[in-house]
Amino acid sequence: MIKSIDHIAIAVSDLDKAVERYTALIGTTPDAARIEEVPSEHVRVAFLSIGGTKIELLEPLNSDGPIARFLEKKGEGLHHIALETEDLEEETRRTAGEGIIPISEPSTGANNKKVVFFNPKDTNRVLIEFVQKL
Amino acid sequence: MIKSIDHIAIAVSDLDKAVERYTALIGTTPDAARIEEVPSEHVRVAFLSIGGTKIELLEPLNSDGPIARFLEKKGEGLHHIALETEDLEEETRRTAGEGIIPISEPSTGANNKKVVFFNPKDTNRVLIEFVQKL
Repeated sequence: MIKSIDHIAIAVSDLDKAVERYTALIGTTPDAARIEEVPSEHVRVAFLSIGGTKIELLEPLNSDGPIARFLEKKGEGLHHIALETEDLEEETRRTAGEGIIPISEPSTGANNKKVVFFNPKDTNRVLIEFVQKL
Repeated sequence: MIKSIDHIAIAVSDLDKAVERYTALIGTTPDAARIEEVPSEHVRVAFLSIGGTKIELLEPLNSDGPIARFLEKKGEGLHHIALETEDLEEETRRTAGEGIIPISEPSTGANNKKVVFFNPKDTNRVLIEFVQKL
């Protein structure tokens, strides 16, 4: 079962400027952002908490990886929605039975969570991620 | 101040199929969706609750309105993020002071809420909505 929306991710070209902008939008200050590098995904990430969920800002660390490619192809903007589950493997089997198919093996992503991504063709061109806290 | 993420909106071409798909994703049934028409916005809307927030699926009622134009230009996909505030007018004045400018006057949107939309140029090409429950 899906418990909550863990985060909404936005691809940005300049993380520091985006953190300033989004903390101003929310009404907090840039030091409220938790910043982390995820070299395996070629990104630097900022998490901004809002109520029980988060906005995740994603900046490419280099020209490799999915966020660099996204920015090159589409420019900045909404990138994916992450849904939280307590049993990622079971939920992934369940949704596969509904025709919603992962595009990757489960791996460890930002913020020490197990994550898996699904084929956007199966969800109205929206990239969906499942996350499980470890 | 921003309290929470009220919803994440997705533009879809067939609402009934999208409700089936997203309720399957979440692990609930299509009758869990709350469906509403908003003729002023030329849309039919389904709300799916997940934890303390919602996914909003938006289908155009006709070829007019922003969702029909979005689908024609970009196809299905993520459309906007809605942030909840208890005082929409005050928050809109505050963010205007930060250079985040509304593109419309406050109006009454889906689910009997006061809403206002901002210029995506000010927020990394993400369409942001503020909502206040009436």
